[in-house]
Amino acid sequence: MQEATAVETLRLAGDTLELLDQRRLPAAVEWVRCTRAADTAEAIRLMVVRGAPAIGVTAAYGIALEARWLATSAEEFGSGLEAAFAVLAASRPTAVNLFWALDRMRRVWTGACAAAPAAVAERLLVAAQAVHAEDVAANRALGKHGAALLPDGARVLTHCNAGALATAGHGTALGVVRSAVAAGRRISVIAGETRPFLQGARLTAWELQAEGIPVTLITDSMSGHLMAQGEIDAVIVGADRVAANGDVANKIGTYMVAVLARHHGIPFFVAAPLATIDPAVADGSAIPIEERAPEEVTGFGAEQWAPAGIAVRHPAFDITPANLVTALVTEAGIVQRPDAAALDALLQAVRRRRPSGSPARV
Amino acid sequence: MQEATAVETLRLAGDTLELLDQRRLPAAVEWVRCTRAADTAEAIRLMVVRGAPAIGVTAAYGIALEARWLATSAEEFGSGLEAAFAVLAASRPTAVNLFWALDRMRRVWTGACAAAPAAVAERLLVAAQAVHAEDVAANRALGKHGAALLPDGARVLTHCNAGALATAGHGTALGVVRSAVAAGRRISVIAGETRPFLQGARLTAWELQAEGIPVTLITDSMSGHLMAQGEIDAVIVGADRVAANGDVANKIGTYMVAVLARHHGIPFFVAAPLATIDPAVADGSAIPIEERAPEEVTGFGAEQWAPAGIAVRHPAFDITPANLVTALVTEAGIVQRPDAAALDALLQAVRRRRPSGSPARV
Repeated sequence: MQEATAVETLRLAGDTLELLDQRRLPAAVEWVRCTRAADTAEAIRLMVVRGAPAIGVTAAYGIALEARWLATSAEEFGSGLEAAFAVLAASRPTAVNLFWALDRMRRVWTGACAAAPAAVAERLLVAAQAVHAEDVAANRALGKHGAALLPDGARVLTHCNAGALATAGHGTALGVVRSAVAAGRRISVIAGETRPFLQGARLTAWELQAEGIPVTLITDSMSGHLMAQGEIDAVIVGADRVAANGDVANKIGTYMVAVLARHHGIPFFVAAPLATIDPAVADGSAIPIEERAPEEVTGFGAEQWAPAGIAVRHPAFDITPANLVTALVTEAGIVQRPDAAALDALLQAVRRRRPSGSPARV
Repeated sequence: MQEATAVETLRLAGDTLELLDQRRLPAAVEWVRCTRAADTAEAIRLMVVRGAPAIGVTAAYGIALEARWLATSAEEFGSGLEAAFAVLAASRPTAVNLFWALDRMRRVWTGACAAAPAAVAERLLVAAQAVHAEDVAANRALGKHGAALLPDGARVLTHCNAGALATAGHGTALGVVRSAVAAGRRISVIAGETRPFLQGARLTAWELQAEGIPVTLITDSMSGHLMAQGEIDAVIVGADRVAANGDVANKIGTYMVAVLARHHGIPFFVAAPLATIDPAVADGSAIPIEERAPEEVTGFGAEQWAPAGIAVRHPAFDITPANLVTALVTEAGIVQRPDAAALDALLQAVRRRRPSGSPARV
């Protein structure tokens, strides 16, 4: 079975970054066009594009587009590009891939700072395209590793969307599912709807349905009941940031699913590229959790169902402690029972394989 | 502080039962009028009225209205009333208060079957009004018992709506909160929105806001995160049916909250009148779980956000095993760590206090 390439999240078309508008899916397939860093940052903030890997790739393109725009003016190039890094870094706080991609683009810039602006801009574009291509490659590699975790017939619960739409292609958690399906296994997915933004109901359901992978939609309140009924064999989710000790920041509700999985003796897998690991953060308590607008909780879209003036909490992410994670799936392999020592060993091994001039963070 | 009576769920006005349309709250305060058993059953099925105690009172009135309607025809009275019992019994399967109220009305009928239809109808009306009044009294009594469980300053998570709107008045879980507030304690409520029907976001938020009891709305996916952050001191929910061994059927998502509470060492309380206890059901596995329409999961109201044709699961209730319940609060007192022996002792004690002619089931 050929892995599907039908779902495209973002693409460069000339001087324009085109982002599939994930706020409108599945009702409409529309593209938002960005030409500079500020509109790219706004698209990230508004969740036109979301998912940690996709945000990283988008931010890299945002820098490249801005550099090309600024390249005609040598005086303003440096300050303009600094402002571009700042506006993109301020777009969303939790996904570390954003900061990883910006760091990488900054290193390309500083490594070429003696060159003319147009040459720097060209190198930044090449770097953004590399970030893009490497994300797809990383997802395919981690998918292949992770597929071994899903036996034939597995009924797999996922939360949010860690699919092609959350990445530059293939997906992390859904990449593992896709790779298992491609290996001939019959996998069915139970998708938690993932209030408040409904990434599960709108995005995971849509991309799996489009590929013919069996998917059943539930509300977030149903996962415990289905586990108790013996209807879930494994859980697999993505991550927005993995701390050095293996704690996982991911979409709000992930922690709840992890506790339920542990209670029922069901394996809980996290699939994420190495770029999602943040060795600078010792544990989950140091990961900033974005608080988003109350209007996303009091309703959805134009529909507002809660009484006006009601107090709301809206943490957009939560922290799953490493001790609830059965295995972390990366493009460099699977880490069983991740902890600080195991993650450090993984990152050291990757560094040894890429001894110098490595574009990757690790 | 006087306990509020502003929130009215249902009322008899002449030959009409008026039900506050809970599908339209909080956007609109509208009343649905029922004059016979069939339209009363339809209102229960469509969730114009919901909440186990309120369903029981509504069904009792449905029988009384139908009896009055049929009273002019001695030939059709018996068969017509049988049909009324059947249509109401088929309206929803999980809440035992429905069957309890119908059993009670049937005993009034059989106890008066020698009388003329008009006299039977009159006795059925008196019985329905007694069911109504006793529910309010039971809620106030259980509220007073339960208030002792909530210390000053407690931040209390609730799920679904077990408030005045779920009963004939005062509420069960929210009745405990109201009674604690009336006793001078500062209680704040965290309301899970309770997808898919959003009883928390629409009903619990509305009735607490109307009374000035502090309430904060969250999505169902956030309770685990708030528990981990130390922001929840207790959980209190209602019940649709309690099995003889203490297993609790309640709105889907209750089990999930119970597992999370246990994981975090937070007490999990269930507040329910004795009419919710079903000694005929040995444990939770024998309680029928209603499966409702997929359209309630794929969207809300007119808004449909999931892709067309997606497979859906929609169990409307789940079972929380008794071993996750810290205490069961009833109008006859609090049962700590409910199990078969403790519930049997409670029901025996109540039977001894009401030795004969008791209208109550127990």
